Amino acid sequence: MNSGALINIGLCGLGTVGQGVWEHFTASRARLESRLGVRLEIVRVAVRDVGKRREAAIPAGLLTADALAVATDPAIPIVCELLGGTAAARTVTLAALERGRMVVTANKALLGEHGPEILAAARRGGGRLFFEASVAGGLPIIKALREGLVANRFPRIAGILNGTCNYILTRMAQERASYAEVLAGAKRLGYTEADEALDVEGADTAHKAAILTFLAHGRWVHPSEMIVEGISRITPEDLAHAATLGYAIKLLAQIDRDFATNQLAVRVHPVLVPCGHVLAGVSGVFNGVSVTGDIVGTTTYIGRGAGRDATASAVIADIADAVALLRSGGAAGRPREALNGNAEGGPVPPVEEPPGLAPRAAIRSGFYLRMTVRDEPGVLARVATVFARQRVSLASVIQRGAVQPCAASLVLTTHESDEAAMGATLAQLGRVSAVLDQPLLLRIGRFPE
Amino acid sequence: MNSGALINIGLCGLGTVGQGVWEHFTASRARLESRLGVRLEIVRVAVRDVGKRREAAIPAGLLTADALAVATDPAIPIVCELLGGTAAARTVTLAALERGRMVVTANKALLGEHGPEILAAARRGGGRLFFEASVAGGLPIIKALREGLVANRFPRIAGILNGTCNYILTRMAQERASYAEVLAGAKRLGYTEADEALDVEGADTAHKAAILTFLAHGRWVHPSEMIVEGISRITPEDLAHAATLGYAIKLLAQIDRDFATNQLAVRVHPVLVPCGHVLAGVSGVFNGVSVTGDIVGTTTYIGRGAGRDATASAVIADIADAVALLRSGGAAGRPREALNGNAEGGPVPPVEEPPGLAPRAAIRSGFYLRMTVRDEPGVLARVATVFARQRVSLASVIQRGAVQPCAASLVLTTHESDEAAMGATLAQLGRVSAVLDQPLLLRIGRFPE
Repeated sequence: MNSGALINIGLCGLGTVGQGVWEHFTASRARLESRLGVRLEIVRVAVRDVGKRREAAIPAGLLTADALAVATDPAIPIVCELLGGTAAARTVTLAALERGRMVVTANKALLGEHGPEILAAARRGGGRLFFEASVAGGLPIIKALREGLVANRFPRIAGILNGTCNYILTRMAQERASYAEVLAGAKRLGYTEADEALDVEGADTAHKAAILTFLAHGRWVHPSEMIVEGISRITPEDLAHAATLGYAIKLLAQIDRDFATNQLAVRVHPVLVPCGHVLAGVSGVFNGVSVTGDIVGTTTYIGRGAGRDATASAVIADIADAVALLRSGGAAGRPREALNGNAEGGPVPPVEEPPGLAPRAAIRSGFYLRMTVRDEPGVLARVATVFARQRVSLASVIQRGAVQPCAASLVLTTHESDEAAMGATLAQLGRVSAVLDQPLLLRIGRFPE
Repeated sequence: MNSGALINIGLCGLGTVGQGVWEHFTASRARLESRLGVRLEIVRVAVRDVGKRREAAIPAGLLTADALAVATDPAIPIVCELLGGTAAARTVTLAALERGRMVVTANKALLGEHGPEILAAARRGGGRLFFEASVAGGLPIIKALREGLVANRFPRIAGILNGTCNYILTRMAQERASYAEVLAGAKRLGYTEADEALDVEGADTAHKAAILTFLAHGRWVHPSEMIVEGISRITPEDLAHAATLGYAIKLLAQIDRDFATNQLAVRVHPVLVPCGHVLAGVSGVFNGVSVTGDIVGTTTYIGRGAGRDATASAVIADIADAVALLRSGGAAGRPREALNGNAEGGPVPPVEEPPGLAPRAAIRSGFYLRMTVRDEPGVLARVATVFARQRVSLASVIQRGAVQPCAASLVLTTHESDEAAMGATLAQLGRVSAVLDQPLLLRIGRFPE
């Protein structure tokens, strides 16, 4: 392709992110064209309702209700899928990739649920997928894993990947406000997904964990294969207890690979993060990802993880990468998406077996448990006996009386143990009549330097 | 170039970084080859003394004392310049670039001093320069600026770019140890450059600031055009005073561009960073860079900034990028280095005037001053009068008696003012006989969210 040529771009979707892409692309277009040496033009924009009044001044002639027509138009080599959801987005993305298009997407649910199918379509059709915007918004974490840290293997990736959960936990900690109260505020500010459970119960973070796992380890792990727990049972008291013990509570995706056994453990749950650790200081709607490489050590990336502008910044960066790839003649020379995959069509085989999944029962952590117990003699002894029987060693105990009449709050932390022993402990605690509720279980993080 | 082809690599230099590259390249080679779809081989290694005994088991047949021969060997398309310094490194780099080679370098001094000449040679000869390892070691900050954040303009970049200074300031603050004491320890650990002044007086940071400035703004600013001040006059008492006022002290490179006036201010000096800011928490030998983009907001990158392994990680990532570029047929389609440059040979002209340099006198900050004054009535009034005459408004005063017989320590902070007013204030303070030493001047940072 000659420099100076015109490259057409199609947008599918004009919601919050789509409008952000339109606006910022329009504003930065002249600079991008100069930098990339080509003319760029958004030539089609697929929307649900063509007649709807919009803030963005988009020429009416560009609008269409037919996203599939945009995705399959032979004159449009770069398609941005910004529809959201996994139904129409899947159809559009598959159709474009099968026809050899470059597809830029911000859709983490689509990749987290259908990643293998999507990439298979790209391989079949010669299409290329760009998804920097799908994880941690404006942070170029995908480029860092694929390119900047390419020399490394990754024993640990730990990240705060959902800004809504981080906003809720931060405000609960700062204001001692209840989960329900802060969630209601977050909804009013438009910080939550249409289905808020996607955020607060961890599914959104799990989709992003699946993408990072694939990039770092070449294996798709479906959220159903992970430990996934959310933040909805955490109370301001838990945050205060954790602070007393020297921890912040963060919803983390944590991806651990043991290269000796070649096993992978992927989990999404609240973690007590030591106050001195950089992720403990990532607050509000910000995301933070700590990547531990075997050569480089730990590098950390912090920034806005979502929202119209941060996501648009990442989508436009992916458009620029797609343009550079088009100008260099397409797929040749582009490394495979995953670190242990081999290059397209290259004769050099992968050198590593893909990792196995660690059995959930064997995944290890320290634990934090908070439960309500009857306020009577001998209860602590009975509870402690349950832990001792499972050989789970207690590290600290905080008992506070009178949370309800005749009831006390009991907060325990344990030394490192495994999910099997803790699961058995929880089951037995359920049969202790003095334990009045289902204990809240959190994990305590240990971090490499 | 066919996939499966062999690509030869030459190393010039086998010091700490060179040995790290050899070791980690050898260990990760099979994975890299699989990912990139080519065979890779280090075919020549230029060293100062071929006969010297080395830890790394490098076949004797690879060694040569002639770095220039490696740089100009037509069979070696990728040359790693790891010599250090600016003499031989300059010759080798220019020779390779003029012959169209891909040159990977970790040499910040070379680029900071001779950047325009080096890039001109690359343009003339069709060579390409890769320099991720030259700033912030293993952190892919150059890739982030050039690619991941390509949609953005950058009103502010602020970074801790010298691990030695950060280590010294961190230990001084933690242990209330003197500068001299901690510097001696850092030397014993091998943390300082051969010429320690490069680290502690800010020259190393200024070289890196020049590189980031070029990447973000398309203009080379030589260190002689920047404010450059080091850390050697800072005392544990300054760190304690700063902590009392709610600040950490960090040596920062700070690059501010005002897009309204199109002026650029580049400076390297110690800054009082508010304790809540993410850079205040970057401690020890770690580097941290906060990049504020007009679309994405502020993103921050934290990791090891130097040392054999972190630097090797970045050099190998650049080798991988060079390989991908070779496989795609060379220069075509690769964007220009700087954000406001136009693509090689492209007909689309730059759209922005390069920025001018803000006059030093007009650069604004709050200031921190510490001076020793005679302990007698009326001194504070005389000092305060000097500030008032220059219309510099005081924000806080701490006076502590008896640092010497009949002398007191006076610490003042000011509201925002400019370098002209502060320079005049310092000159006048020099004529107040009750001021017994040259005041230490530090700047107080203000940071966007």
